[in-house]
Amino acid sequence: MKLTHIATALDATIEGDAAIEVDELAPLDGAGPRSLSFLSNPRYAPQLAQTGAAAVILGPDMEGPGCAVLRVADAYLAFAKALELFDRPVRPADGIDPRAHVADSARIGEGARIAPGVQIGEGVRIGARAQLHPGVVVYPDVAIGDDFTAHANVVIRERVRIGDRVTLAAGVALGGEGFGYIPLPGGGVQNVRQIGSVEIQDDVEIGANTTVDRAAIGVTRIEKGAKIDNLVMIAHGCRIGSEALIAAQTGLAGSTVVGSRAQLGGQVGAAGHLSIGADARVAAQSGVPNDVAPGAVVGGYPAMDVGLWRRVSAAVHKLPELLRRVRRLEKAMQGD
Amino acid sequence: MKLTHIATALDATIEGDAAIEVDELAPLDGAGPRSLSFLSNPRYAPQLAQTGAAAVILGPDMEGPGCAVLRVADAYLAFAKALELFDRPVRPADGIDPRAHVADSARIGEGARIAPGVQIGEGVRIGARAQLHPGVVVYPDVAIGDDFTAHANVVIRERVRIGDRVTLAAGVALGGEGFGYIPLPGGGVQNVRQIGSVEIQDDVEIGANTTVDRAAIGVTRIEKGAKIDNLVMIAHGCRIGSEALIAAQTGLAGSTVVGSRAQLGGQVGAAGHLSIGADARVAAQSGVPNDVAPGAVVGGYPAMDVGLWRRVSAAVHKLPELLRRVRRLEKAMQGD
Amino acid sequence: MKLTHIATALDATIEGDAAIEVDELAPLDGAGPRSLSFLSNPRYAPQLAQTGAAAVILGPDMEGPGCAVLRVADAYLAFAKALELFDRPVRPADGIDPRAHVADSARIGEGARIAPGVQIGEGVRIGARAQLHPGVVVYPDVAIGDDFTAHANVVIRERVRIGDRVTLAAGVALGGEGFGYIPLPGGGVQNVRQIGSVEIQDDVEIGANTTVDRAAIGVTRIEKGAKIDNLVMIAHGCRIGSEALIAAQTGLAGSTVVGSRAQLGGQVGAAGHLSIGADARVAAQSGVPNDVAPGAVVGGYPAMDVGLWRRVSAAVHKLPELLRRVRRLEKAMQGD
Repeated sequence: MKLTHIATALDATIEGDAAIEVDELAPLDGAGPRSLSFLSNPRYAPQLAQTGAAAVILGPDMEGPGCAVLRVADAYLAFAKALELFDRPVRPADGIDPRAHVADSARIGEGARIAPGVQIGEGVRIGARAQLHPGVVVYPDVAIGDDFTAHANVVIRERVRIGDRVTLAAGVALGGEGFGYIPLPGGGVQNVRQIGSVEIQDDVEIGANTTVDRAAIGVTRIEKGAKIDNLVMIAHGCRIGSEALIAAQTGLAGSTVVGSRAQLGGQVGAAGHLSIGADARVAAQSGVPNDVAPGAVVGGYPAMDVGLWRRVSAAVHKLPELLRRVRRLEKAMQGD
Repeated sequence: MKLTHIATALDATIEGDAAIEVDELAPLDGAGPRSLSFLSNPRYAPQLAQTGAAAVILGPDMEGPGCAVLRVADAYLAFAKALELFDRPVRPADGIDPRAHVADSARIGEGARIAPGVQIGEGVRIGARAQLHPGVVVYPDVAIGDDFTAHANVVIRERVRIGDRVTLAAGVALGGEGFGYIPLPGGGVQNVRQIGSVEIQDDVEIGANTTVDRAAIGVTRIEKGAKIDNLVMIAHGCRIGSEALIAAQTGLAGSTVVGSRAQLGGQVGAAGHLSIGADARVAAQSGVPNDVAPGAVVGGYPAMDVGLWRRVSAAVHKLPELLRRVRRLEKAMQGD
Repeated sequence: MKLTHIATALDATIEGDAAIEVDELAPLDGAGPRSLSFLSNPRYAPQLAQTGAAAVILGPDMEGPGCAVLRVADAYLAFAKALELFDRPVRPADGIDPRAHVADSARIGEGARIAPGVQIGEGVRIGARAQLHPGVVVYPDVAIGDDFTAHANVVIRERVRIGDRVTLAAGVALGGEGFGYIPLPGGGVQNVRQIGSVEIQDDVEIGANTTVDRAAIGVTRIEKGAKIDNLVMIAHGCRIGSEALIAAQTGLAGSTVVGSRAQLGGQVGAAGHLSIGADARVAAQSGVPNDVAPGAVVGGYPAMDVGLWRRVSAAVHKLPELLRRVRRLEKAMQGD
């Protein structure tokens, strides 16, 4: 690909040889004479001088290493655009494979690519240009919009509703029964049937092996543009706001509400029946027992203001020594 | 459905118009003129006055909002029974689909519903009325009781034993090799083969994408009526007591013993080779390094008495300030 | 199996009746007159006297319970070898099942065992003696070495590279898009396409439902002999060193580097863009925000030296009392 072509797509200025062609994007330390690389995280700045790249994408203040430079306002954003230029997505073959099983009453839109081994139940409706990879199972009465992609072995339970341009990674399970049980005083356990559903709005993306349970009544809802990573647990009745970002292995107990654009790090736990406000940020591994205010930045277990949490983190290893010092003070006082 | 019919099933007294009919169960804030709703968590009491429900299920002391009331002793328990009335479970079609693959030596009981794409190995025995959704894989020599339900893409490895009325959610993996390796002093790793099995007793339910590994020798056992949520890890040789409840993303290392009716919150970790006593309760995200006494209620990392843990949680953010105060005391003492 | 045969394989000395035959390996408390058992964890020593085993494997210093003894240098290592003798692994039937779907351009080596319902994409290359259980999905252009085993419903995305003697447990998902999004200042989210791949080297084993995401550019790499447990998350761009051991539910954020032979306990979280050195050990549930030195042993949240962490753990429950004591000291000082 010509560097000039890339520069146009990235809104970049070329410094150096504009006639260069590159074949691939590569990290600084893996780049060769046909590679385009980039630097945005200053952590990797020492790799810049040694890189073998033909060209690098750099932000305004960063000096080039001698090779050609694509100068941009925001190196990471420009890199994201470059990735789109080089992306070669794999799609199932055109049409509905005869080894897929589509129920008679299901309706599939135009341009579908349905792989062998896909199972689509009665009453299912899927919009245009769907891509269903092998082993995807869609239970009856599911409704899905246009431009849907489900990777291999995704499971979508009955009556789930999915919007346009949704992508589900391998092994995602949508719409399973929520975990509801009442231990009875005299022994035994009363099962709380979960008869609600799951609603996934437009532009949502969900990572591999993540599970989203259906509500006991009503819906578990993931709103427009939210992005959810791998192995996340969204329990029954949760509501995830638009453009929220939820990192891997985070778990939200029942009826947790996450506001728009909130960001949750990995392995966060929320106790359920609480609200994490819009634009809030929760540090990885935090435990959230109570509401988090909109825009708040919290961390720790239990979660607190992140600045305080950092000071607590810095102090916690002094605790054994602190005990000794207090004991010494107490002795000194008694000795008075 | 007639309110009088529901009232009988729930053992409820009707206050208001007994002639009402409702079509659905709905949360207070999503209820309309054909909805039955309920209130049990006082957190949602403010929604009661505004609800558009035709009728609500209420416990003894709660004043009705003007609409009809189904008065019961325990609103949540009554709601659970109402859910059963409205549940419309989806089952695979009657019989064994010709696109399923059942090995010649497998024996399937009467009334089975086996979906396309199911794979059943040699020597498998399954009782009456089994429901196997698409993509379920049963390895050879598995024995399963009556009224078994496996949702799509469940995997059951060789020789696993399963009782009656067991339900497995999508993507559950039972009977994988436990994680056993011995790093050798001179380099290299000795694999510890896992030749035991998994035993799932009657009335157990397991959530989506949960994994239960087989024991090195003997069995990993989940006893009668235990309920396990999504994305839980039960390692080799664990024993989960009857009617224990284990919430999502909890992980139990090898040979953990959980007593009957114990309740573990989400994201709990147990260190293995330890015992959590009967009726014990472990708060979400706790780390359990040692035995927990029967009936104990613990929380935190490392887990301690939950009352103490709450006080520690309330105190931990004062730690940086405490350091300053002790420093001040030390200076004052020196200044004496 | 004759005890003499086992003794030879284990390099053991027989004490007692060498003519004994045993049928199975069993734990001390589940052993009968045809069982061979063992003791290595001193925690289970009290079970030794009561065991009904025909013979037990014991290390040098342990007195036998009266039955035959296989005396060895290291009881756990000898037990691991005994497990190999008794292992009866289940394999798919010989050959490529006609109900599997292998793309025309795929190349499968000799001795393959490919089960019904397996899907292999265009351009895939797989070496000799592959075992693919039902429901395995291999996307196009994947390259796999010899002696590969994939259990049911494994998903391998396009262009992933896998070495020799690799085993993937049920539900593993390799090569999904990494979680990369840039929230835009004016609203909206820029998707960071992930066009790199995953490389799994020789002798790696990966547990059930674990996910390994592909890198944005370059590869996510798991090096020779590393062993990864169930439900682990390896994010885009990570590098896991040779013979590293990673226990269940651990999550590594993007570009984490784990050194050779490092051991990570269960539910560990690493913040990404950091390095855990060779031979380091990280205690279960730890949170790793920064680099860990080679050989270091750390624990806690945030992770610190494990000895210090044990003292902090022992002190943390004294925090509420410490607050009271400092308050008392302050009052006493003021009262001076």
